[in-house]
Amino acid sequence: MHQIQRQQTAELLRQRGISRALFAHQESVAWLTGYAPPLDMGTNHFAGGPALVWVEDGHFTLIVQDGLAAHAGAFNDEPDGTLLTYRAYTVDGPSQSSANQAEVLRSVAKSSRARGMLAVEMDALTARLFEAIVFGLGIDLTPCDGWLKPLRMIKNAEEIALIRATCALTDIGHAAARAAVAPGMREIDIWMELQSAINRTAGHRVPLGNDCTAGTRAFNIGAWPGDVALRPGDSIIVDLSTRLGGYWSDSCMTHYAGEPSDKQIATHRFIQSALDYAIALVKPGAIAREIDAAVRAFIAKGGYPVYPHHTGHSVGTGPHEEPRIAPYNDAVLAPGMVILLEPGTYWPGETGCRLEDALLVTTDGCEVLTHFDHTYPGQS
Amino acid sequence: MHQIQRQQTAELLRQRGISRALFAHQESVAWLTGYAPPLDMGTNHFAGGPALVWVEDGHFTLIVQDGLAAHAGAFNDEPDGTLLTYRAYTVDGPSQSSANQAEVLRSVAKSSRARGMLAVEMDALTARLFEAIVFGLGIDLTPCDGWLKPLRMIKNAEEIALIRATCALTDIGHAAARAAVAPGMREIDIWMELQSAINRTAGHRVPLGNDCTAGTRAFNIGAWPGDVALRPGDSIIVDLSTRLGGYWSDSCMTHYAGEPSDKQIATHRFIQSALDYAIALVKPGAIAREIDAAVRAFIAKGGYPVYPHHTGHSVGTGPHEEPRIAPYNDAVLAPGMVILLEPGTYWPGETGCRLEDALLVTTDGCEVLTHFDHTYPGQS
Repeated sequence: MHQIQRQQTAELLRQRGISRALFAHQESVAWLTGYAPPLDMGTNHFAGGPALVWVEDGHFTLIVQDGLAAHAGAFNDEPDGTLLTYRAYTVDGPSQSSANQAEVLRSVAKSSRARGMLAVEMDALTARLFEAIVFGLGIDLTPCDGWLKPLRMIKNAEEIALIRATCALTDIGHAAARAAVAPGMREIDIWMELQSAINRTAGHRVPLGNDCTAGTRAFNIGAWPGDVALRPGDSIIVDLSTRLGGYWSDSCMTHYAGEPSDKQIATHRFIQSALDYAIALVKPGAIAREIDAAVRAFIAKGGYPVYPHHTGHSVGTGPHEEPRIAPYNDAVLAPGMVILLEPGTYWPGETGCRLEDALLVTTDGCEVLTHFDHTYPGQS
Repeated sequence: MHQIQRQQTAELLRQRGISRALFAHQESVAWLTGYAPPLDMGTNHFAGGPALVWVEDGHFTLIVQDGLAAHAGAFNDEPDGTLLTYRAYTVDGPSQSSANQAEVLRSVAKSSRARGMLAVEMDALTARLFEAIVFGLGIDLTPCDGWLKPLRMIKNAEEIALIRATCALTDIGHAAARAAVAPGMREIDIWMELQSAINRTAGHRVPLGNDCTAGTRAFNIGAWPGDVALRPGDSIIVDLSTRLGGYWSDSCMTHYAGEPSDKQIATHRFIQSALDYAIALVKPGAIAREIDAAVRAFIAKGGYPVYPHHTGHSVGTGPHEEPRIAPYNDAVLAPGMVILLEPGTYWPGETGCRLEDALLVTTDGCEVLTHFDHTYPGQS
């Protein structure tokens, strides 16, 4: 698993003349190794710091806390992988997890035969671990935050299979939301229906974002589900990301409690056409900022308020990845990229509509990966 | 809100001769300010680093990403508080959140009138932020990880009210689990029933741990809910922590699918008596390791396998806090502490039982804060 990612990384480091690197961002670690433990309670309470990957001479050493080693799967059996653990939860004394992790990292660094700069993800490494290798061993560092992002843009077959699976799970959530939306239901009620459907289908707890917000909320673009009951005719935006096998989806559907108004129907049909228009722009060679500009122009030309957010982005081991479909981005689309497009229009405090699909860029266009029902009630 | 915590912290720093400090652990930041944003997707994707609290001359500056500032409530209105934000999500260019956060921190540090060492939580600060103040400004640091833990042990009235509320919510979850447990139900089905009940009651998504594991699992002490269907007579351990208003609960109940066996009934009654015995030991002046030893001895004397985990711990802005009720701990209990006790006994792969209550240490004993039904089916 993830061997292609590691080979690409080893090659990148060679090209940059770097003989050793330390990755600490959870998205980098997941991409390099598949290690993606549950997120539900945030950072694990007993962790000494983030999980780490030390790379040297094409070999990858994954350092995780002992209690979560099961999430590292068979990494130790990989030809280019070694799994090291440090003691985190203890009963016989206070937890010394950060000191234990620093000690494991220090011994890996001390036994390093490579010389020269160590590339380090500075935004994710803790000051404690940084201190252990800089002041403890006198190793010179260079930041490598973001170095993996260009590699992560093109998904390999293994990754595409995982993203297909998480998109299918996301579709389950949208179907459950569709069945649940009705006057009197609260945002949180709808959320629990869709979360239950997703987790029961997966057979385990699935990390889940993003929004479940009634059109009548002042900030009706994106918000977590709350104690807000739908009234007849209210719109509700349901924006879902699920993480399965370490890979995220993204998607958005707008529902209506009971009968949508004429304005809502016209808006929904218009945003459907905007999404269709956007999807038709996704092909190899297309430029991110040009897609962004074209979709915004389509919305404006239709006489609708233009959304203030990005037009799209990618997903992978992170819920937002490059290339972003945003006004500044010169990135050129290529086969194997996964692109999410999310045109919308909003009247704050009144109603709004956003639709979002996940797409795989193919050799001559794109394939839609999300297959939930995009229609409003009564649409033929 | 949280002003007592800040006054205690300012006093602690004075006593230690420290004129300025930087707290970065999410539990410290929540304790000092009440800032406790959702955890569901782990670290916020757009964050530059952890939320920070800079303390100087009894004044507290909270630094958070702009998109989550609403979770800082009215901190800026506190007489001893200032809220600063940094730009995280952007559409007009790539997110520069870590650089933006470092810049805000650097300007706070540069305008500092205090001199001397800066106390820093090294286990939570990122290397990027560490570098910004050490190499950027040449400030000498001393680690302060764990300094707040002794202060956090004694809960004030505001905190006790929050812990009562989260324990009441936890009780809702246990009632839902009791109603759901039946042959054929899977661990994940039971979990979704209880999570739905908790979130619908709260009116929003509630961070939720810990275990939902059938007795027939090889590791039946603690595991996340899975695709494991209960057979008639199976035990299932449901260990729940909810976080409400930034404060965690903890608790555990053991249920049975259908009729418990004679062995399960005897075990359940015995663990009930062990919990009662343990609760009677909780009073001011009691020593943590002596409670731990007494409860283990009670289990052994009853002829049951002694649990391998700690006997208990506290909660607060973290799900595990001091004092831990563990073999090594000389901590002396005092009024205002919250203690969780969790005696259990396990036959791996067969069955097991654990019961856990939350307690508030009072002037002459303790008050039980969790009130879920502790009985097995048919117990009078």
